[in-house]
Amino acid sequence: MLPDLTTLSDFRNALAQAPGADADARAACEDRNGQLTKPPGALGQLEEIAIWYGSWRGTARPEVRAPQVIVFAGNHGVTARGVSAFPAEVTVQMVANFKAGGAAINQLAQLADARMDVHALELDRPTADFTQGPAMSEEDLLAALRTGWNAVDPASDVLVVGEMGIGNTTSAAAICHALYGGEPGDWTGRGTGVDDEGLALKTAVIAEAVALHGSRDGLEVLRCLGGREIAAMAGAIAAARVLRIPVILDGFICCAAAASLARLHDQALDHAVAGHQSAEGGHQALLARLGKAPLLSLGLRLGEGSGAALAIQVLKGALACHSGMATFAEAGVSDG
Amino acid sequence: MLPDLTTLSDFRNALAQAPGADADARAACEDRNGQLTKPPGALGQLEEIAIWYGSWRGTARPEVRAPQVIVFAGNHGVTARGVSAFPAEVTVQMVANFKAGGAAINQLAQLADARMDVHALELDRPTADFTQGPAMSEEDLLAALRTGWNAVDPASDVLVVGEMGIGNTTSAAAICHALYGGEPGDWTGRGTGVDDEGLALKTAVIAEAVALHGSRDGLEVLRCLGGREIAAMAGAIAAARVLRIPVILDGFICCAAAASLARLHDQALDHAVAGHQSAEGGHQALLARLGKAPLLSLGLRLGEGSGAALAIQVLKGALACHSGMATFAEAGVSDG
Repeated sequence: MLPDLTTLSDFRNALAQAPGADADARAACEDRNGQLTKPPGALGQLEEIAIWYGSWRGTARPEVRAPQVIVFAGNHGVTARGVSAFPAEVTVQMVANFKAGGAAINQLAQLADARMDVHALELDRPTADFTQGPAMSEEDLLAALRTGWNAVDPASDVLVVGEMGIGNTTSAAAICHALYGGEPGDWTGRGTGVDDEGLALKTAVIAEAVALHGSRDGLEVLRCLGGREIAAMAGAIAAARVLRIPVILDGFICCAAAASLARLHDQALDHAVAGHQSAEGGHQALLARLGKAPLLSLGLRLGEGSGAALAIQVLKGALACHSGMATFAEAGVSDG
Repeated sequence: MLPDLTTLSDFRNALAQAPGADADARAACEDRNGQLTKPPGALGQLEEIAIWYGSWRGTARPEVRAPQVIVFAGNHGVTARGVSAFPAEVTVQMVANFKAGGAAINQLAQLADARMDVHALELDRPTADFTQGPAMSEEDLLAALRTGWNAVDPASDVLVVGEMGIGNTTSAAAICHALYGGEPGDWTGRGTGVDDEGLALKTAVIAEAVALHGSRDGLEVLRCLGGREIAAMAGAIAAARVLRIPVILDGFICCAAAASLARLHDQALDHAVAGHQSAEGGHQALLARLGKAPLLSLGLRLGEGSGAALAIQVLKGALACHSGMATFAEAGVSDG
């Protein structure tokens, strides 16, 4: 059961008290994996994710039957600084495209037989320009977290959260720079395609913003430097953790949202795998910080949840093998 | 139409005369790709393979509807030298497992909605130990090539060829060492799991075999150092080239079969992409020689066509986006 969120403390507490994976199911999955008709380890990462998934679903023969893809959209005051190659009105245009079924994520969600939901968060009220002050008030942050928290279908068995928000790679890079330090350029990429001059401007904007906001607490970083769609992603990932629904993380922005949760609690992302490594600048370093090895690395840098939605197919492949293969004994095959 | 193969020269000629991809379809695919509602290049390798696939299928909006997976099995005389961690009878046991639906490839073919065929090539008559003489006679090679050639369904729209054959990583490594030189250890991996001592023995066996057989012609290398299932894979990949059916290459053994075709003709593999990078020792170097970037890299080292069958999902994702997405004009989205 998912508790109601009425304060930010509720959120912190729910995350801290969320149950872990099922140790018995993990042992049963490992045992079954060792008996399947293949040399030990020959299915590589597929074996690991099948065992991980089974341990969160509490069964030795798991299947994916009800994937959910949720796309959150938000607008960013920092676009006033000229950090994006696309104008801010593209956010609302793309939301219409999601609703009409025309975007990449629609095709990939359909391929995965996933339910897809779209939540546009107050697009006509962008966050504040975070080089001038906090992006959101505490009230706004809570509202965005709640949108994500309540968007998760408790009956889903794997969750992908994606986003759309012109300017949000700037926000995600600022979150990473605040949480992990380093140089602002370590976390800054070209987003939808800024040129060298745009990249230099974006890097300077990120440095300025992180210098302005001193707190390194996960929720404060999210409030000061995040966006509504990024906070909603964090809310959904946290709800899935409480509900023991495995999550496939998408690219840089999704992982920045996840990183704010990891700052709040060490085990906050134990229910999550990295769906892919994006071509966006800071994503490889961010995955390393999160300790997640990506399932795919295809040079995607679209967002929307696209890479993670495609990775549902890899998870399905892993589970098809794990749950469907014969054992050495069943097949009468010599096990070496 | 697929010509009959009655001599090895027929095979060489058919490969040399095979038609290329459709340049008009490629241009139409590139044009469509540039209009889809995403920043240019944001779908990375998915864009490339959608364009590649459309150019071979002759359409700007391609779909995969009829994938075919063919698993070839053969036995290897070189197993007498103790090069494998599993006994040779596992080949016939695994063929029974394929036919009963219990192997990894069965699950992955089913996930891809693929037709799956299994061809066991004279399992009770292993190839000769190629450290003593050629693995096959010209007649045996032709028969194996024909098995693969005739196994391809002309109505299929993507082909995966896989294999089973205890000892066949030794054969594949010998093929690579003969074709590309270097040190025998560059191409030698642990196969189903030999220990350090086994690996040293295997490397020595490969060096011995390649020293014995001097020809570096693609078909001669296949005849002297290959196996029946490897030659059948080469036959099927070549037939697909003639039929303009795109191929997703599997791991080390499949790529060794493909390499023998690349030696025969520069454009022999233009219809093929690399499905995955295997954990087997020489595969990364072999992909580099073939100039193919893998779609997946999940540490698989099972064979059977498993990695390539899983990569059908990536191809389907690429085509779902390419053929299903709205254009900027259709969706009313500003294109930057």
